[in-house]
Order: sequence, then C-alpha cells, then structure tokens
Amino acid sequence: MRQIVLGLGISLDGYIARPGGSVDFLFMPKDYSMAPFFKTIDTALMGRKTYEVGLRMSGGKFPSYGLNCFVFSHSLPSGEREGVTIVKDSPPDFVAKLWKRKGKNIWLMGGGELARDFLKADLVDQLHLGIVPVLLGEGIPLFPPGFPQREFSLLENKSYSKGLIALKFQRVRTKRKSNR
Amino acid sequence: MRQIVLGLGISLDGYIARPGGSVDFLFMPKDYSMAPFFKTIDTALMGRKTYEVGLRMSGGKFPSYGLNCFVFSHSLPSGEREGVTIVKDSPPDFVAKLWKRKGKNIWLMGGGELARDFLKADLVDQLHLGIVPVLLGEGIPLFPPGFPQREFSLLENKSYSKGLIALKFQRVRTKRKSNR
Repeated sequence: MRQIVLGLGISLDGYIARPGGSVDFLFMPKDYSMAPFFKTIDTALMGRKTYEVGLRMSGGKFPSYGLNCFVFSHSLPSGEREGVTIVKDSPPDFVAKLWKRKGKNIWLMGGGELARDFLKADLVDQLHLGIVPVLLGEGIPLFPPGFPQREFSLLENKSYSKGLIALKFQRVRTKRKSNR
Repeated sequence: MRQIVLGLGISLDGYIARPGGSVDFLFMPKDYSMAPFFKTIDTALMGRKTYEVGLRMSGGKFPSYGLNCFVFSHSLPSGEREGVTIVKDSPPDFVAKLWKRKGKNIWLMGGGELARDFLKADLVDQLHLGIVPVLLGEGIPLFPPGFPQREFSLLENKSYSKGLIALKFQRVRTKRKSNR
C-alpha cells in the first residue's frame, strides 16, 4: 500500500513558515540529503497556499522535481496548470483514487491546514520532520489544532550538523481501517 | 552562572497538557531517568496553573522533591504555602535575585505562559524536551506565540524506549547580555 508521508521542516516551536510565509530559518545541512526520500515517492500533495509560496520562490514555475504534483484548492479552477494539477476532491476521495493506481509513496508537503484535513481523515501514515534549533515565537503551525489524537511509533531519529534533527514516525492504528 | 532550564515533556504537536490540564499522554520509559537532571538543579520555578495541577495530582501537597519551589502568581497571596513560595516579581527581577545567590541550575517547569514571559526576557538558557510520539490535536502549548526569535544549539539527542526522544539545547546569544 502506498504510504502518505507528511514531511516538512519545522522550527522547535512547530512552525513551517513565518507569518508571511517565509521559510528563511530552514537550512539543509551538508551531511543531510533528501535524495533517499525522493527515491521513495512519485507524487506530491499540497494546499493552495503552499503552492503559491512555491511559485513565488521559484519565480512563477512550480518546481515539481519530476513528481506528480496535486494542489488542493477551493478557489483555483481545477485541472492542469504550471506543472501541477489543481483538485477539488476531499482528501479521502482523492486518496482513494491514488490508492487504486500503483505507485510509490505520496508526499504531503503541507501546509498546516491540509495536514489537519489529512489527520482528521486519518490519512497520514508517516511523519518525517526536520527540526531546526530555533524558536520563532510566531508563524504558521504544522499542526493547527482541530483533529483527533493520533499515535505514532518512532522509526528513526538522527542528528545532523548545525543541530538539525530528522525524525521519522509511523502511524500506529489500533482499529482496522475499513477504507483501505 | 546558574543556568535556567526550561524542561518539560510535550506531545509531537507541542502540547504540555490536554485542554483540561491532564498529562496522561506523558510516560517515563524504563531506560530513562530524571535523576541526573535532578542532581544539577536546586530550584524550580512554575506558573500558578502548573502549581495547581501539581497540587491536584498529588492530593493537596505539592511534591517539591527537595527543591526550592517558587510559583509566579498575580492572584495568590505572596509568601510561603504548601511547600512553595508564591512570588509576584517579574521574571527578570526575580531571576536577578536568584543569580546573586550561589546555587545549582534552575528548573523552569512551565507552563507555557510563564515560558513565554521567560523567553520574552531572554532568560531561558537551556531547553530540555521529552517528545512523546503522539499528536494530541489540541491542548496547552509549551510555546504560545508572542516572544522574539531565539536561536539554540543542539547539546544532546537521545532516543528511549516507546519512542520518547530527549533533546537538550543551549541558548546561543550573539549579543552580550547587559544584566548578567
């Protein structure tokens, strides 16, 4: 079964971005690589705001890195545009379609509002968090409140240079999911 | 110089307690011990709500563990009571008094509102976080927004059984503090 991986860099106080969307506090240590992760995925899901930040940062062409990129949006017209596909399905409906196709794992890139929708529907199978050693004091949270409790087990905990901590967790479900 | 250590167990989404104050999600792994930490401290600081949760959980006698316990409160009468001392000073004024006395490190036990006051005044020297592998979806945050950015360096990152992660950070200050 294709796993849905919520994977993001966050501050120690749990923010994925500053209030205006800037992610200048994130960094990529020399001894860390996202290449092994990219080998496990072929699809990326994101919310509209995350997509628009990506567009801004790249000067108008979303960097898809060869992934099938889908953007959940209520306001944008659905269909393909600028290297992504805008979708209006609910996360459970859309994920049910993805599960019917063979493929690699699915990267849930954020932001917090889409993460909350996925956590509400219990669609997050793994968490990959890169924790940066700074308290921002304000920003856009990865885990805004408003979803039920979800247990995880620790798969991996590694420290990298400049104090980046990379954590991987697997969702622990006690009840069988009827929709999988 | 006596270090002020903000030390707490939190959920993966950064909560020190459920909305009603329950900390039933926290656990102490068999391979983890707080004894080494207790050897480094002689003083505990907490907010009024944290004190009252401690009182409730212990049946009316706050468990001081041989520490000098101080409770910051605007509403309780100042002075000694039930094994603690209620103080009305601002954190900087109170800490300035502590620094004049010789002693071990000082444990800032929480909660989030007092942590914010200390972070605002840049009085937190170390963070000791025990991260439990659960997303609660709601609760009382350790780091409520409303303080300036604070950089830290990673001192220690250890994994324990049942997926508890224990992190220690040291505050990195670029400017000399005039009040120390």
